[in-house]
Amino acid sequence: MSELSHLDAAGRVHMVDVSDKPDTARIASARGRLACAPATLEIVREGRAPKGAVIATAELAGIMAAKQTANLIPLCHPLPLSRVSVRIAMTDLGFDIVGEVKTTGKTGVEMEALTAVSVAALTLYDMLKAVDKAMRIEAIEVVAKSGGKSDWPTAE
Amino acid sequence: MSELSHLDAAGRVHMVDVSDKPDTARIASARGRLACAPATLEIVREGRAPKGAVIATAELAGIMAAKQTANLIPLCHPLPLSRVSVRIAMTDLGFDIVGEVKTTGKTGVEMEALTAVSVAALTLYDMLKAVDKAMRIEAIEVVAKSGGKSDWPTAE
Amino acid sequence: MSELSHLDAAGRVHMVDVSDKPDTARIASARGRLACAPATLEIVREGRAPKGAVIATAELAGIMAAKQTANLIPLCHPLPLSRVSVRIAMTDLGFDIVGEVKTTGKTGVEMEALTAVSVAALTLYDMLKAVDKAMRIEAIEVVAKSGGKSDWPTAE
Amino acid sequence: MSELSHLDAAGRVHMVDVSDKPDTARIASARGRLACAPATLEIVREGRAPKGAVIATAELAGIMAAKQTANLIPLCHPLPLSRVSVRIAMTDLGFDIVGEVKTTGKTGVEMEALTAVSVAALTLYDMLKAVDKAMRIEAIEVVAKSGGKSDWPTAE
Amino acid sequence: MSELSHLDAAGRVHMVDVSDKPDTARIASARGRLACAPATLEIVREGRAPKGAVIATAELAGIMAAKQTANLIPLCHPLPLSRVSVRIAMTDLGFDIVGEVKTTGKTGVEMEALTAVSVAALTLYDMLKAVDKAMRIEAIEVVAKSGGKSDWPTAE
Amino acid sequence: MSELSHLDAAGRVHMVDVSDKPDTARIASARGRLACAPATLEIVREGRAPKGAVIATAELAGIMAAKQTANLIPLCHPLPLSRVSVRIAMTDLGFDIVGEVKTTGKTGVEMEALTAVSVAALTLYDMLKAVDKAMRIEAIEVVAKSGGKSDWPTAE
Repeated sequence: MSELSHLDAAGRVHMVDVSDKPDTARIASARGRLACAPATLEIVREGRAPKGAVIATAELAGIMAAKQTANLIPLCHPLPLSRVSVRIAMTDLGFDIVGEVKTTGKTGVEMEALTAVSVAALTLYDMLKAVDKAMRIEAIEVVAKSGGKSDWPTAE
Repeated sequence: MSELSHLDAAGRVHMVDVSDKPDTARIASARGRLACAPATLEIVREGRAPKGAVIATAELAGIMAAKQTANLIPLCHPLPLSRVSVRIAMTDLGFDIVGEVKTTGKTGVEMEALTAVSVAALTLYDMLKAVDKAMRIEAIEVVAKSGGKSDWPTAE
Repeated sequence: MSELSHLDAAGRVHMVDVSDKPDTARIASARGRLACAPATLEIVREGRAPKGAVIATAELAGIMAAKQTANLIPLCHPLPLSRVSVRIAMTDLGFDIVGEVKTTGKTGVEMEALTAVSVAALTLYDMLKAVDKAMRIEAIEVVAKSGGKSDWPTAE
Repeated sequence: MSELSHLDAAGRVHMVDVSDKPDTARIASARGRLACAPATLEIVREGRAPKGAVIATAELAGIMAAKQTANLIPLCHPLPLSRVSVRIAMTDLGFDIVGEVKTTGKTGVEMEALTAVSVAALTLYDMLKAVDKAMRIEAIEVVAKSGGKSDWPTAE
Repeated sequence: MSELSHLDAAGRVHMVDVSDKPDTARIASARGRLACAPATLEIVREGRAPKGAVIATAELAGIMAAKQTANLIPLCHPLPLSRVSVRIAMTDLGFDIVGEVKTTGKTGVEMEALTAVSVAALTLYDMLKAVDKAMRIEAIEVVAKSGGKSDWPTAE
Repeated sequence: MSELSHLDAAGRVHMVDVSDKPDTARIASARGRLACAPATLEIVREGRAPKGAVIATAELAGIMAAKQTANLIPLCHPLPLSRVSVRIAMTDLGFDIVGEVKTTGKTGVEMEALTAVSVAALTLYDMLKAVDKAMRIEAIEVVAKSGGKSDWPTAE
């Protein structure tokens, strides 16, 4: 086995065998942000583009995308998600996105949380691109994961 | 009509009518990067995780994801893509990703290019997460788009 | 938590946390009908449009759609279905459709049963629309569900 | 060829050949409703379940489902939709749903409009089922279609 | 460019650029067979497993799979199929399957025809596997394609 | 019940009830091959078409297709796959493909293994079709399955 679990001893990809792992309750959260121009935020803040319509659409897209993770990421195991939440908040610089996913399964759900955040960010971008062509998706990362052998960040 | 094309006059979302737009050749390119630890790059550089396996898998996932854009982004129009390319290069700080998409259609393909880059980044993350839990997806943005009314960046 | 499980305390949508619910055997059945003109029924009855081809296609489409429920209904949990049956019978007024779904899981399968019936009805419509433009899908509802906390109809 | 276009001369199903048909602008609209208890409507009206969250989620699900029509209805041709709109209004009896779809293509989009309405109704059902187990989806039908050989209702 | 169109000059995969190709009417047909035991054929012939149920299910699965080709084959271009037909006939040795696909587009549809035949064969296998574990899918190949630069077999 | 599990007593298709079956560890392996011209093999062997690019793309497509089995094969139960591996080797006659799939579930995974092999073969075909129009997919069959009531081949 390679150091990378998705590669076998010969360095070829496979969907790694998790059948001997126990089903445990697992949680992962991820975050990211969409940076945009102040004028773009103003449009949403002033309700010229209803905040609900923009943000609720992106949150829903993120939730639905979490369920597509194993179809998008080639070596991800399909998992029966038991909770998905995506929350978007406006800041002075753009939109902060937090995604949280739970499962009871044999592998962690950080890819599902990251996918939810990524697609929510893409959807915000799509909703706002008519008025701002210089937006940027930034800093998508795992905040925490627990329930497996490699919880993170490590408790001390 | 709102300033935001995905919202109607009442501020409710719809998939905007593009039926009167001409079918034109359109191109969009996007980029982004996955920042990771130097030790993670070393593993790929030294071939302990074959560069081909890691990078080729992510490039392929990005290409396939471009074709799923209209299923992931709620208000995107489905488009018959005529070219998709995703190229990943290693730098000192991680992996640079460039996605290029072409179509002959009624709307631009920047969402397809952004989706390709995002899913390629997520797949790199998935391939490497066994050895690096602090990776971050950074700076996903449109580099250029052409073929529509709002080419970008604007030629001068 | 709102009275509606898909909304949180702030009234924003999420895929509700079911991780603490036990996996129980759950069954749901739903029904509906496609009302059509007598002449349309005659075509099927007389075998000018083979009953098997029309009805079997719609039954199969309903079964396959049950497996897509969590991809269609944004806040539905994905569930490992252990049985799906769709049965269509001709009446004097059109087609009666019954869908039954079973799972062993943490949430009920009434949405899967309703989705199976709905897509079976849509497929019947599609098969017959060349000869009848005034058909109508009617009375899609849950007949019974069991295995969860809120069985229905309530036993007395 | 059978009277039913999806069946060939031998009565077996196929996806009928439309390659010789011209690409024309086509529009279809469909409607339907979800009938529910007055108390359920009250919850939404009084904002205990924010109207936006319930209705906007169902509208978005209907729009996204229109794009899945050819994957759900076995013999439907895939079509590049150029507009999709789903509008839900509250009445004294429940929720009225209207879906409108446009394309430039070789076949009509009434199945796409019906699918959008059906999935919007199913999503409303899903959002409200925690408080009302006796809801019923009613009267899903095509209101109008134009742009093909068999416009409907026939102009006079 | 490599001799293989899906590889670029550097030997890396891409979805090749077809934007400069004209939209032409294209047809492809493919065939294959499922070889099974005589006793298995008897069950279907004698109607103990209704021929319609077994064969019609497999034909429909093949038609639906043709529409999924670009999602299954990584570098396939999505195409608006204008006709799909799958026909299965019983022989002394098993089941012969023929798939025919048409489009008006920039690339050929032989992959769609091959995918339709493959999934029809897999579905026959699935329908019959309870009584025959030694079935074999054989000889899936393109019979003819036309409408592009490389028609096949070559007319003489 | 018919001899064929996917048919009920009346000979109509259903997704058979497996809810009373225990969740057991199940493995299935399948194989197949793509026969091609010696000149085609030479192109891959000499690296004019990098072996990695051709073979790795097909292996990955096979892995991803295994996860789509229940969406392609109408009466297949969805299963949470715990391992998928596809390995392709070059021979004098073409490409040998082996697929292995594991799950812990109520039904076997031979359809998943067969689907992985079939789509890997189709992808090889797609990668090589620019230089060889007479390739043929051959001998797709189950090699072994275990973990259910009907293990195969039978141990002696």
